[in-house]
Amino acid sequence: MVLSTDPMTAPRPIRLGMVGGGQGAFIGAVHRIAARLDGEFALVAGAFSSDAERSAASGAEIGIDPARAYADFGAMAEAEAERDDGIEAVAIVTPNHLHFSPAKTFLESGIHVICEKPLTAKLEDALELQRVAAATGRVFVLTHNYTGYPVIRQARAMVAAGELGPLRVVQVEYAQDWLTEAVETAGSKQAEWRVDPDKAGAGGALGDIGSHAFNLLTFVTGLTLDSVAADLSAFVPGRRLDDNDHLLLRFTGGAKGMLWASQIAPGHENGLRLRVYGEKGGLEWAQENPNQLWFTPFGEPKRLITRGGATTVPAAQRVTRVPAGHPEGYLEGFATIYREAASAIRAVAEGRPIPPDVMFPTVEDGVEAMRFIDAAVRSSSDDSRWTKLG
Amino acid sequence: MVLSTDPMTAPRPIRLGMVGGGQGAFIGAVHRIAARLDGEFALVAGAFSSDAERSAASGAEIGIDPARAYADFGAMAEAEAERDDGIEAVAIVTPNHLHFSPAKTFLESGIHVICEKPLTAKLEDALELQRVAAATGRVFVLTHNYTGYPVIRQARAMVAAGELGPLRVVQVEYAQDWLTEAVETAGSKQAEWRVDPDKAGAGGALGDIGSHAFNLLTFVTGLTLDSVAADLSAFVPGRRLDDNDHLLLRFTGGAKGMLWASQIAPGHENGLRLRVYGEKGGLEWAQENPNQLWFTPFGEPKRLITRGGATTVPAAQRVTRVPAGHPEGYLEGFATIYREAASAIRAVAEGRPIPPDVMFPTVEDGVEAMRFIDAAVRSSSDDSRWTKLG
Amino acid sequence: MVLSTDPMTAPRPIRLGMVGGGQGAFIGAVHRIAARLDGEFALVAGAFSSDAERSAASGAEIGIDPARAYADFGAMAEAEAERDDGIEAVAIVTPNHLHFSPAKTFLESGIHVICEKPLTAKLEDALELQRVAAATGRVFVLTHNYTGYPVIRQARAMVAAGELGPLRVVQVEYAQDWLTEAVETAGSKQAEWRVDPDKAGAGGALGDIGSHAFNLLTFVTGLTLDSVAADLSAFVPGRRLDDNDHLLLRFTGGAKGMLWASQIAPGHENGLRLRVYGEKGGLEWAQENPNQLWFTPFGEPKRLITRGGATTVPAAQRVTRVPAGHPEGYLEGFATIYREAASAIRAVAEGRPIPPDVMFPTVEDGVEAMRFIDAAVRSSSDDSRWTKLG
Amino acid sequence: MVLSTDPMTAPRPIRLGMVGGGQGAFIGAVHRIAARLDGEFALVAGAFSSDAERSAASGAEIGIDPARAYADFGAMAEAEAERDDGIEAVAIVTPNHLHFSPAKTFLESGIHVICEKPLTAKLEDALELQRVAAATGRVFVLTHNYTGYPVIRQARAMVAAGELGPLRVVQVEYAQDWLTEAVETAGSKQAEWRVDPDKAGAGGALGDIGSHAFNLLTFVTGLTLDSVAADLSAFVPGRRLDDNDHLLLRFTGGAKGMLWASQIAPGHENGLRLRVYGEKGGLEWAQENPNQLWFTPFGEPKRLITRGGATTVPAAQRVTRVPAGHPEGYLEGFATIYREAASAIRAVAEGRPIPPDVMFPTVEDGVEAMRFIDAAVRSSSDDSRWTKLG
Repeated sequence: MVLSTDPMTAPRPIRLGMVGGGQGAFIGAVHRIAARLDGEFALVAGAFSSDAERSAASGAEIGIDPARAYADFGAMAEAEAERDDGIEAVAIVTPNHLHFSPAKTFLESGIHVICEKPLTAKLEDALELQRVAAATGRVFVLTHNYTGYPVIRQARAMVAAGELGPLRVVQVEYAQDWLTEAVETAGSKQAEWRVDPDKAGAGGALGDIGSHAFNLLTFVTGLTLDSVAADLSAFVPGRRLDDNDHLLLRFTGGAKGMLWASQIAPGHENGLRLRVYGEKGGLEWAQENPNQLWFTPFGEPKRLITRGGATTVPAAQRVTRVPAGHPEGYLEGFATIYREAASAIRAVAEGRPIPPDVMFPTVEDGVEAMRFIDAAVRSSSDDSRWTKLG
Repeated sequence: MVLSTDPMTAPRPIRLGMVGGGQGAFIGAVHRIAARLDGEFALVAGAFSSDAERSAASGAEIGIDPARAYADFGAMAEAEAERDDGIEAVAIVTPNHLHFSPAKTFLESGIHVICEKPLTAKLEDALELQRVAAATGRVFVLTHNYTGYPVIRQARAMVAAGELGPLRVVQVEYAQDWLTEAVETAGSKQAEWRVDPDKAGAGGALGDIGSHAFNLLTFVTGLTLDSVAADLSAFVPGRRLDDNDHLLLRFTGGAKGMLWASQIAPGHENGLRLRVYGEKGGLEWAQENPNQLWFTPFGEPKRLITRGGATTVPAAQRVTRVPAGHPEGYLEGFATIYREAASAIRAVAEGRPIPPDVMFPTVEDGVEAMRFIDAAVRSSSDDSRWTKLG
Repeated sequence: MVLSTDPMTAPRPIRLGMVGGGQGAFIGAVHRIAARLDGEFALVAGAFSSDAERSAASGAEIGIDPARAYADFGAMAEAEAERDDGIEAVAIVTPNHLHFSPAKTFLESGIHVICEKPLTAKLEDALELQRVAAATGRVFVLTHNYTGYPVIRQARAMVAAGELGPLRVVQVEYAQDWLTEAVETAGSKQAEWRVDPDKAGAGGALGDIGSHAFNLLTFVTGLTLDSVAADLSAFVPGRRLDDNDHLLLRFTGGAKGMLWASQIAPGHENGLRLRVYGEKGGLEWAQENPNQLWFTPFGEPKRLITRGGATTVPAAQRVTRVPAGHPEGYLEGFATIYREAASAIRAVAEGRPIPPDVMFPTVEDGVEAMRFIDAAVRSSSDDSRWTKLG
Repeated sequence: MVLSTDPMTAPRPIRLGMVGGGQGAFIGAVHRIAARLDGEFALVAGAFSSDAERSAASGAEIGIDPARAYADFGAMAEAEAERDDGIEAVAIVTPNHLHFSPAKTFLESGIHVICEKPLTAKLEDALELQRVAAATGRVFVLTHNYTGYPVIRQARAMVAAGELGPLRVVQVEYAQDWLTEAVETAGSKQAEWRVDPDKAGAGGALGDIGSHAFNLLTFVTGLTLDSVAADLSAFVPGRRLDDNDHLLLRFTGGAKGMLWASQIAPGHENGLRLRVYGEKGGLEWAQENPNQLWFTPFGEPKRLITRGGATTVPAAQRVTRVPAGHPEGYLEGFATIYREAASAIRAVAEGRPIPPDVMFPTVEDGVEAMRFIDAAVRSSSDDSRWTKLG
């Protein structure tokens, strides 16, 4: 059995605030579990809703001191920055267009930021955030949570070690079916803002899940995307943003790929899949059974690499909680991002460099994903012409 | 997307102690994560080891007040029972032969008990614990954690609703490979006590994993086991307890089954599988991908029922945290047992009946599993003769 | 790409007759395709039915010379033995109780026999056939067709080469669902004779599919079954033969196993599965995707061995027709038995020894399976007592 | 059990000749088995090689009358057309550039043609063949064999019946790994001509396997491809034709899709996969386990439709040989194309219309695939610009 150190090693949890994530929100609860799972964070404040009553009610429901349930993130930043026991980090779990302002505000208040993806609704905002993060020296963590899976860490290490040889082809897809019908006009809050360009930005499925797919492929392969040829579609009548995206990819150095993102593919719940092929071997992974990685050294039988199982590399082992065969899931992967965030925050607080084995998606990754979205939207508007990332 | 209420609804976590689970123990860390995941418990005390220094070091490592890191569970029970902020519940995560005494002690101190399986090392101790639990009125939760998986709840509900018709055949297996070689003589602490009859009891693999398999099948099917014909083996030379178990099963009412438990089956990490067949349909489930349940109504195509997906029943939905396609794993299932424990403890504390939809393995389930182990050992010693549960 | 020699190398097909397999029979058509697939046999005569008109009609339908469509297998044996162009071999595809007489008759007429399983309805008949076959020196092939799959040949070779180390545990199952309801009283000809002890013999599911499971496990493992503890059941009301069988197995040398055969397990079409575990590794195979074999060397990742793929051994390669990834199926496996039969028949005809790499189930294998059925029936009648094979 | 009529119903096999398929060729052996499997054809003549000795040797090896083993297909057409027992149909199994001349010659000699794909090496030749076939009234069958799988027939019928609703997205891929290294310079005859533009035509992987993928998607969906945006690559240094193809697809009516064909993807043996999504449901199929089809009606659990199993439609049932769970494979699917060819040839011979349920790929399908290849090559040369099929 391969086990990482008991994660509950923190003598003191980091004080965390939250922006968004009020009653009825899905992702807020996910962040709260992820923050808590390894005992690294304690949620102590929040601006859960811009509606004061609702924020208070949300806070009360989860045991937040009423004085620290704010209606306004600006007030929260100001008040918390002044408290001796003020929050050290904030989780931003609002819709895309509401990432930028709170993120900037908290960074400038000296508070570390853990932010939902995509980074912002507009590329220019993303670039501005990157500047602010650099200037303030605060930790900025983007929750591309799928990079937290141990076998994804394994895959990255194997590619980096040359086990696949120079890469040639990358096939990535992220298929869902929950927007097959026009649920945005039937009361789905989750859907409403995601198909509204004023809130989601220029990409619909592209921003929501395509950004995850893009981030995952770059994390695992280490490749730099050079240009895209994109065909973005909105199949559901009346929908204003893309719900199905077909992209050709060209990477610096000659590798090529395809990316498919869809939210109208019946039969797919959360079908993120990555396949990578090099001169010497291939890898296959699917998120819905995230503990398995298939590796084929060319000319040999396919091998099943399992989380915590035989041949696990250190980079995977250090984020593994339970032995092989005891599946870890979505929340554990998400919690790993939080654990990595905690390590980074503690290092910065103590003036130490962030340990080199700590890995999390950064503001730079967020900017890169925004460049990807931007290039794809431009390509699609230009008859799918090959378009370089700006 | 199907979501249960945000679990972080507890205004105040229940104060929890732990017996065992010191440095290097696997299952202690699992209990700590499970207790914390939904915010229902706060670990505040522990007798992590019978070695005082080691218990103190273990407590320090995970942020326990040094005054509450005990070397002795008796002292802990006494001291905590006297504190105003004393523990309300205790998790017992020691080897089998060390369940009985602390469990009895804490129950008698008025403290609710969450205990590892199997219930005890000896059937007589199990029966005594059952009496004590009943007399004290404390909540007793046995961590047969696999009953916490949402689709296992779904399977149980489907059987109970008659979707399979009257049951005929139950095939259950629990296969691992970590004892394929004599690791107990090569330094594996995990293995040492499990193959020692003084610590594990009369069953080796049977007690360690066979008890899980037995509990799972009774939970899902609702059947009562009448008798067994068992062939228990120790394949590894020198091993004193069984590492491979073959059993025929006969249930009250005429259903029959087979149970295979093995810890010497190369290629199996944690292969718990259950298959149930009735007059009208069949179900198949495998723990290593616990979010999927296969259901075949006789004469129709096989259907894939997913956690949180289409056709999820309320009993499954109420223990579901994240949407379909976002896999929940071992720790979430384990945490559900803790969440159920919390619901029961709060109800008892408030003088309310435990809500009928709250489900957890009880001391009675533990006694039944001990009867199963006892009958199997007797059968195996008697040339695999059919042997009734005592 | 790994390819065997083009199978159509026979300058002249062997002349084949058939007993049974008239209109409406399933297995007769299977034998005809299998005989023809590699061009090794030409069907030229038949006693397709004991009803003269029906035999004639069946023969006409498939292009048999009317003079050679017999109503009686005895007449056929006599007539064909006298013709210069008479049949050299006969395929017997009748119900179990009608294997013995024609097999004996044709052997004694100097004609090679290819016979459906199980060998006979009664053990004594099987022993008599064994004597006759030996005395006549004719080739006797029993169509335990699953031994024809290339990856089953691979599995056998790997076990024989010691890649699993000494064997410990064998788990085999054969689950179907087509007898879940009482189709024998609803017009199913296939079912009628299979549940009639006068026609099927003492075993129902045991003879029909349990015999396949037994043969497969002995073929792959090379183990000798010493004794069984059996619990045979007829779950469908009114059924006179077992439709679900649970068996414990003990092999000479200390290995143990379980065998489950069922025809009332909804969700299983033709679920023959074999798993073998030794001191050094494990193998898993399932008939419904017969081109894949899973091999786990203990302590290493599981490997997917594919028909025709990397690491294919010569014994598998010589019965492989098309490259890896181009699935071969049930008929190809069946045809391999016919191809092996042809090799054996040609060798005997030419006075050569049968080449050592030619493998097919023999009359001895059939006798062994009858001993297995006999012991299981006796054990089940004797309260599942351990019973040695006679 | 669902069974088609015993296929061996032909009172007289159709006399077949072959062009190509001499010693060492893979696909020739496949055609011979496929032709023979259902007893519909008897191979009686061949121009197996343009080398006279080699053709004679090949013919001798498979039992062909020496007088009918020709060195030249022209001579064969002439001689056979004059014989009373001359061939009625010819199978052309040569490399792509050698399809056109023999096909034209045999059609003009009044002989039906069964031809390997892609139809020709050049689009203009394909158009000429289409004219010749129409003028002669001979049957022309293109062996896009994957359309012979029963569940592919099922998928087509389900789409046609509207079970998926109007189609939106089609994802098709065909991945192999056998050209990962430069085997064409290491003695692989199979590889040599496939990477030579003079023999294969303008498409490498695109013609070899992309044409299959294209044919399959149009067969199942009934969609008409309007235009493509293609990025064709040759990753192996020195290779003159594409070995990896990335294409975006736009269909008439608004559906869109992606097509990936690769022969350099380690881990893929013969990975043809098709996924189709409509407004009401989705279908998934993978060739390596061709007996399974996954169907998700939107909002319901995924269903496993099996060959011969529950809900099989008549169009699938009529090409099914053995019951569900008894897998049919590549050769059976290929043989179905031959069986359909036989039905068509017999109808034409008897002056009857070809029965409407008989389905096989035609010369028109071949022309369409050539248009697809042509458009893809033009698009790829034009910076992946959207290019209409000519």
